[in-house]
Amino acid sequence: MSDHRLKTNLIDGQEYDPQKRPRFNEIASFMRAPVATSLSDIDIGLIGVPFDGGTSFRPGARLGPRGVRQQSCLMRTKSHYSDIAPFEVCKIRDMGDVFIDRMYNIEDAHACIERYYREVCAHNIMPLTVGGDHSITYPIFKALAKDGPIGMVHFDAHTDTWDSLYGSKFFHGAPFRRAVEDGLLDPLRTIQIGIRGSEHSGTPNFSLESGMRVIFIDEFDELGVEGVLKEIKRVVGDGKTYISFDVDGLDPAFAPGTGTPEAGGISMREALRLIRGMRGLNLIGGDVVEVAPDLDPSGLTTLNAATLMFDMLCVLADARAKHPLNGQTTNHQR
Amino acid sequence: MSDHRLKTNLIDGQEYDPQKRPRFNEIASFMRAPVATSLSDIDIGLIGVPFDGGTSFRPGARLGPRGVRQQSCLMRTKSHYSDIAPFEVCKIRDMGDVFIDRMYNIEDAHACIERYYREVCAHNIMPLTVGGDHSITYPIFKALAKDGPIGMVHFDAHTDTWDSLYGSKFFHGAPFRRAVEDGLLDPLRTIQIGIRGSEHSGTPNFSLESGMRVIFIDEFDELGVEGVLKEIKRVVGDGKTYISFDVDGLDPAFAPGTGTPEAGGISMREALRLIRGMRGLNLIGGDVVEVAPDLDPSGLTTLNAATLMFDMLCVLADARAKHPLNGQTTNHQR
Amino acid sequence: MSDHRLKTNLIDGQEYDPQKRPRFNEIASFMRAPVATSLSDIDIGLIGVPFDGGTSFRPGARLGPRGVRQQSCLMRTKSHYSDIAPFEVCKIRDMGDVFIDRMYNIEDAHACIERYYREVCAHNIMPLTVGGDHSITYPIFKALAKDGPIGMVHFDAHTDTWDSLYGSKFFHGAPFRRAVEDGLLDPLRTIQIGIRGSEHSGTPNFSLESGMRVIFIDEFDELGVEGVLKEIKRVVGDGKTYISFDVDGLDPAFAPGTGTPEAGGISMREALRLIRGMRGLNLIGGDVVEVAPDLDPSGLTTLNAATLMFDMLCVLADARAKHPLNGQTTNHQR
Amino acid sequence: MSDHRLKTNLIDGQEYDPQKRPRFNEIASFMRAPVATSLSDIDIGLIGVPFDGGTSFRPGARLGPRGVRQQSCLMRTKSHYSDIAPFEVCKIRDMGDVFIDRMYNIEDAHACIERYYREVCAHNIMPLTVGGDHSITYPIFKALAKDGPIGMVHFDAHTDTWDSLYGSKFFHGAPFRRAVEDGLLDPLRTIQIGIRGSEHSGTPNFSLESGMRVIFIDEFDELGVEGVLKEIKRVVGDGKTYISFDVDGLDPAFAPGTGTPEAGGISMREALRLIRGMRGLNLIGGDVVEVAPDLDPSGLTTLNAATLMFDMLCVLADARAKHPLNGQTTNHQR
Amino acid sequence: MSDHRLKTNLIDGQEYDPQKRPRFNEIASFMRAPVATSLSDIDIGLIGVPFDGGTSFRPGARLGPRGVRQQSCLMRTKSHYSDIAPFEVCKIRDMGDVFIDRMYNIEDAHACIERYYREVCAHNIMPLTVGGDHSITYPIFKALAKDGPIGMVHFDAHTDTWDSLYGSKFFHGAPFRRAVEDGLLDPLRTIQIGIRGSEHSGTPNFSLESGMRVIFIDEFDELGVEGVLKEIKRVVGDGKTYISFDVDGLDPAFAPGTGTPEAGGISMREALRLIRGMRGLNLIGGDVVEVAPDLDPSGLTTLNAATLMFDMLCVLADARAKHPLNGQTTNHQR
Amino acid sequence: MSDHRLKTNLIDGQEYDPQKRPRFNEIASFMRAPVATSLSDIDIGLIGVPFDGGTSFRPGARLGPRGVRQQSCLMRTKSHYSDIAPFEVCKIRDMGDVFIDRMYNIEDAHACIERYYREVCAHNIMPLTVGGDHSITYPIFKALAKDGPIGMVHFDAHTDTWDSLYGSKFFHGAPFRRAVEDGLLDPLRTIQIGIRGSEHSGTPNFSLESGMRVIFIDEFDELGVEGVLKEIKRVVGDGKTYISFDVDGLDPAFAPGTGTPEAGGISMREALRLIRGMRGLNLIGGDVVEVAPDLDPSGLTTLNAATLMFDMLCVLADARAKHPLNGQTTNHQR
Repeated sequence: MSDHRLKTNLIDGQEYDPQKRPRFNEIASFMRAPVATSLSDIDIGLIGVPFDGGTSFRPGARLGPRGVRQQSCLMRTKSHYSDIAPFEVCKIRDMGDVFIDRMYNIEDAHACIERYYREVCAHNIMPLTVGGDHSITYPIFKALAKDGPIGMVHFDAHTDTWDSLYGSKFFHGAPFRRAVEDGLLDPLRTIQIGIRGSEHSGTPNFSLESGMRVIFIDEFDELGVEGVLKEIKRVVGDGKTYISFDVDGLDPAFAPGTGTPEAGGISMREALRLIRGMRGLNLIGGDVVEVAPDLDPSGLTTLNAATLMFDMLCVLADARAKHPLNGQTTNHQR
Repeated sequence: MSDHRLKTNLIDGQEYDPQKRPRFNEIASFMRAPVATSLSDIDIGLIGVPFDGGTSFRPGARLGPRGVRQQSCLMRTKSHYSDIAPFEVCKIRDMGDVFIDRMYNIEDAHACIERYYREVCAHNIMPLTVGGDHSITYPIFKALAKDGPIGMVHFDAHTDTWDSLYGSKFFHGAPFRRAVEDGLLDPLRTIQIGIRGSEHSGTPNFSLESGMRVIFIDEFDELGVEGVLKEIKRVVGDGKTYISFDVDGLDPAFAPGTGTPEAGGISMREALRLIRGMRGLNLIGGDVVEVAPDLDPSGLTTLNAATLMFDMLCVLADARAKHPLNGQTTNHQR
Repeated sequence: MSDHRLKTNLIDGQEYDPQKRPRFNEIASFMRAPVATSLSDIDIGLIGVPFDGGTSFRPGARLGPRGVRQQSCLMRTKSHYSDIAPFEVCKIRDMGDVFIDRMYNIEDAHACIERYYREVCAHNIMPLTVGGDHSITYPIFKALAKDGPIGMVHFDAHTDTWDSLYGSKFFHGAPFRRAVEDGLLDPLRTIQIGIRGSEHSGTPNFSLESGMRVIFIDEFDELGVEGVLKEIKRVVGDGKTYISFDVDGLDPAFAPGTGTPEAGGISMREALRLIRGMRGLNLIGGDVVEVAPDLDPSGLTTLNAATLMFDMLCVLADARAKHPLNGQTTNHQR
Repeated sequence: MSDHRLKTNLIDGQEYDPQKRPRFNEIASFMRAPVATSLSDIDIGLIGVPFDGGTSFRPGARLGPRGVRQQSCLMRTKSHYSDIAPFEVCKIRDMGDVFIDRMYNIEDAHACIERYYREVCAHNIMPLTVGGDHSITYPIFKALAKDGPIGMVHFDAHTDTWDSLYGSKFFHGAPFRRAVEDGLLDPLRTIQIGIRGSEHSGTPNFSLESGMRVIFIDEFDELGVEGVLKEIKRVVGDGKTYISFDVDGLDPAFAPGTGTPEAGGISMREALRLIRGMRGLNLIGGDVVEVAPDLDPSGLTTLNAATLMFDMLCVLADARAKHPLNGQTTNHQR
Repeated sequence: MSDHRLKTNLIDGQEYDPQKRPRFNEIASFMRAPVATSLSDIDIGLIGVPFDGGTSFRPGARLGPRGVRQQSCLMRTKSHYSDIAPFEVCKIRDMGDVFIDRMYNIEDAHACIERYYREVCAHNIMPLTVGGDHSITYPIFKALAKDGPIGMVHFDAHTDTWDSLYGSKFFHGAPFRRAVEDGLLDPLRTIQIGIRGSEHSGTPNFSLESGMRVIFIDEFDELGVEGVLKEIKRVVGDGKTYISFDVDGLDPAFAPGTGTPEAGGISMREALRLIRGMRGLNLIGGDVVEVAPDLDPSGLTTLNAATLMFDMLCVLADARAKHPLNGQTTNHQR
Repeated sequence: MSDHRLKTNLIDGQEYDPQKRPRFNEIASFMRAPVATSLSDIDIGLIGVPFDGGTSFRPGARLGPRGVRQQSCLMRTKSHYSDIAPFEVCKIRDMGDVFIDRMYNIEDAHACIERYYREVCAHNIMPLTVGGDHSITYPIFKALAKDGPIGMVHFDAHTDTWDSLYGSKFFHGAPFRRAVEDGLLDPLRTIQIGIRGSEHSGTPNFSLESGMRVIFIDEFDELGVEGVLKEIKRVVGDGKTYISFDVDGLDPAFAPGTGTPEAGGISMREALRLIRGMRGLNLIGGDVVEVAPDLDPSGLTTLNAATLMFDMLCVLADARAKHPLNGQTTNHQR
């Protein structure tokens, strides 16, 4: 049951585990996972969405998937915390990047993304995505929430529930407003964590008005990690839940490589404890977005993004193995 | 009352709010504020003092004002925490940089700075300054403390109350000793926060001897943010108080771009909570100093400095609106 | 005649020359020029177009104007080579950035740019622009070529005469094909210099087919700077001519901060000799595009871009003073 | 004949050309070439050798293959200079990285490399390698020169014909001495170009003593590119010839990301003209070595290495198509 | 008793304290200490071991000693926390770097290191080392634990008690397993702090099995600094104890310049409190390892490493003065 | 005669050549030369002057000596070009840095420097200096030109013969005007090479007026390296001559780490040929100035500065050996 992560050696035809090779070896796929060659028989798909046409300040997140692939070679196979070994309990593949064949128009781009994820869902694959800017989560939701609104645990400095900007309803500050409006996201089962920074005066807060639970950084300080975890569980309950992690939810000291950093955010230790604490939720997918590698010469942002992705993969794999999608067990156990 | 932050569009003659434009747009003034064209009718002046002739290790803080102007475009108009919208309650202008016409002699340079701030005070403008090295606060105090010694909340890794160095009484390690000696600063109403690092053995501590309250980083750990805030309020009371924030008070992970970093300092989350907690004090001005952008390719230091400046602006604007200088209400309410 | 570059000191009301102040002083406008307050009475406008929605690889050129403003403080007032002192022979203003109020749609964005430049032309202002990606030159031409097709001296690694890409006729690889198709650019009076790099096989070369003179880098090596200058003069003759300099025309060692660098390009010494050699042509404007400061931590790209801009300004100012637009002498000589 | 570079779309099953996708798309293989799944039916193999255990100053070249893969996405399909379209005339595959299963011992590591290349040669595949430090060329030669000594065109700042260092006969300064001693390399058909820098006094020059043609940078200046090309052709004649390009042969302004840079080297324009000029030689393989991406935050070194690799691929593909190995035509033409 | 840190001025022959000079002055020795000219009469030796042949991912720690020397100029002479002035209570010298005359073979290299430290121990010098990768602590232990197994306080993200890797029993992931096997390290008196990250599934944990006390980062969060300190004291007791600090024990936000960073680690404030809390233990030496300066353009890693080294020096000097080695008081008190 | 560059091994008491050790080994002195312990018996002194109080834009050159010491480890012992082995023909020592005990006042600082060099000259030591900003050459000349005005070969982007700036006659733009006025420098035996950039209009050119030979970069292009060399020899003749190399004379692509870069300068290949060509002149000293390492994360500037220094050392050592100062042969030959 553990052999589905092996590759075949080109020279001697032997199978080997790519994650046991030196990390600087191998073409950089996400966590050195095998690259998918078909859509069948995959439990969890690791997917890149290299689109940053929805940013409002510094672009560059289109290079996020490539950067995270490179740094994710630092990941090994098992969580020291939970003992979850995702590649053993699920069949996991790097599915490559979504090809956005009309990248100069944000609505066309979103349509490409939606089409891609419809196929992913149709093949019963749980998606774990690396962006791209946060606008991409909206078309992902269009494919994922086909059976009704889903819940979300959302890490971010910003609520991303603004309205139109510069003539477009679609940009990286609005995906979750659009998702609520379209019945894709249940605001009462949505919790936003780490919100902070200055605001535009006179702008009503759609998150609060629609009933989302917003934990500003000040309340985060008061509640502590355990208190926030309790709130997460209370809000999302046991319904289908998606995790969306905008790296600007982290303090910029941990993620300088992002387009709209906000001072005074979450530390990586806090973030990892929160993600690990979500084990047992009814998770259906997740993403790490707004990683702009060229804005961070130290590589810290991609390293932290890759680690968030790995810990997310652990709880997703645990959920995927226990809560089969569509009434099925994980593919590889069949 | 909210129209004094508008600019006029060059092409169509319409007024617009520069803070609602894309952040990469517009010539970079502090927080995209309008640039002053005269000294009349300004409540708070945002001022750059590009002088680093008082540094003792790595120079570069002369480029601090330019760097902070650039990153401060990330600031919006209102604090999410306090709902203070500084540009609505006060008339705020970027006053440009002090021109130091004799920059190669530190005493001459200080005289230029003093002259400038005398005009600022004479026009009833509350100054919020970006340095430059910390030696600049001394000539600012010479102009500001014209009616007797003031109090200070001082964030720093160093006490800056040393004596002469390499033949000069004036350099960035001595401003507050000089200020006490000259009767500009009341040591009993001075609190220094975040002090740490190695010391020179055999050197008496002027801060402690003169009666300042010094919170070394170890005591900071014990007191916590709330305990420190209590001490701040106890020490400065309701007298006139100035906030001086040397970015090396932050841990170098949050501010690598400074001349004399010291490991193990304050985090941005702590710093922002402290500044926000000072609302209600009788504040008369503030500064953020020792920002050396070229020493930090990630831009983290200027981002954090700009955010400290914004949160300082919020509490200053609140004070300026409520505690009119010279018995007057804020200029714009006349 | 030399006083129109002076500013007024905020403190003492005296006039002063901002270009004689320390370079780290003053809010960063292009070459420390005064900022325009109206459209009247300007000979040459220095304009930023912060748009990079037309890039095909790494974005970031939207921050080009801000980056070039910052580094252009290194420019002084007179060319050592030609003795042209542009600020003395023309009235030059930093006109700020074009506000693109619909930035998420490239065609809408281009319409904003075109509208802006129509006003510029209507006020008899010669534009010198900093981009932004190269797609912006197309809407500039729409305003500038109102009286018939113009000629162009074009420095670039790429011809930028490709056809549609990913569903859009408008992107940074196609502006000059569109311009020829629309009758804005005369291909027979167009010369492209420094073209190189790998190509897509099977793609016809529109530049060659339409009759442009294309000097690939190999021929550049053979002709030398003097030979290229001769070709420039032969091709553009004495008709109206625009200079467009994509910084990726430079070797990446001189301009790493650009989205699609190509190895093996022009050196800065060659580039400056070519620009200086264009004195005497009938020049009507110019641009420096594709500067992405965040991709170059050394600041080299913005420094070189600012210098190209200065030397372009010298020959443009010389042309503007001698060849009045619309039959008028320069504004300031009236 | 041009369809062997296509991949199959995961979602719709359609074939597509990966080199026509956006450059930030796709998992980063060398020049976005398909990844080999077997050794059969490959004309040219693009191979990474991530080993830097032979460096003498700054290590880091083990990350060279990964860095070059990433930047090589900037390559298109055809040389603008020669019209050679390598992917059309040969079947080219990214063969991944050599796995060095005993990386802590340089002789064991070299044995791994040699075994790998023996398989490559046995399958009639022409290798184009990215290192790794220069010590790797020695085990490559052990596999490649199985029928007698080969010739070499060698670009470098150093002769790499020193003797033992710190107790080892094998390190990145000695590969070509070892190769001559073992009868793998014919010194009379070897030309070294760009040699320079300070030397250790008292050390005899093995290159000169063994009869290699050494063009120091001073003679390079005198001969010019055309003169050097003439010497290349004279020295290697029509025998089997390998191209080895150490990026420190380039001036450090073009390749700061290398372990032992030497000031005053070859420019990229010169290097590309030299490589292109080698069309028609009896070429049997090549390498680009000593690329240490972490030592160059600008990405310039990997960009230039990728470009050298592309131009080398063009002349190699031309040779492979015309001079079939072992009396066969290229595989794909069968 | 305080004059043994003085140097003699070259020009005037006067003695001076190098630590009172500007920090950018003087050739960079560790903390500006005098450089040893013989092995006699030294209490504590500051030693560099520039070897990184045992790394498994990114190399570069061979440049650690040089980088830490440069940044350690920021250290002054006395701890503000403990009032320990190490240079007053002990005679401290920069002993330069270990010369590893067979650097291409890890076992030979380790033998060089062991020989060096045998001399150090023979001369009754307490060593404080800067690496180099963590494999170097094993040969240091071979010299240091000559009278039986020692205890260790070990800060790290990794246990470094793995078994062989890629054919070698010796590399930076295995030193403490080898040390236990050789009877150099007492696992029951060993505590490992900050362990975290993903693991290889199926690998037994030698640390736990051998009886070491392992504080994973999760337990660290629960215990807090005071709780961890209590555990340190309980575990090591009053036997001979060595401190080994791998900078990857720190969160990568504090130490991006290391070969195998792991997200979510210890902060500098925590680390310094832990080191300071070890005053009074029976300390016999220490090291700071895995500093790779070229991987961190901000200089943060070397700054933090130098500060860890200074605070370690304080508690070591305190121990050295109080617990004379071999029944002797410190050398300088004789 | 070749043994005076040896050091003594601390451990075994054996002598060894530090330049044969790995470059990452040893405390970083200039070119790994032994550090002087007295002023007697030195032919050439390598001296750091870490002062940048005379800069007009970006400071940081005070860290130049430290940065060049670090990179100069890349130098070996003999020029490949001239076969000069400086350490064999002269006794060369790193003399450390000048201690400027009154660094906050430029005139006091210059007095310190002058005093230091008076001792150097009194001991018959030929100085080779690393700055520091260019203002330091003036006090060096005060010591060096004690017997009448000297000649100079000066590489720079700027003439450095301006008059006062911001109230000071002493800054990095004026040293050679002051030197001519004081009779230290003979303008008729002075040649300035690489001058370029924009100028301030209305400023007379003191260099030209005083009779210096100024080779602007345009004439440099025309003359070529050989032509420039001819001019150098013609101008300085056989009188005493000093070489002063401001790294901003190089193109910024070769030296981004300097305070006032100017686009379009000299390449390293040209610079090295010029320095090598000065063999045989009556050279009495030299300097490399304006190296600001923190402004160049790639390390290119310090590498190139170290190489310029090495090649300068070769021709200086050749001159020192042949043209004994004060009628004496070199010290070591006595």
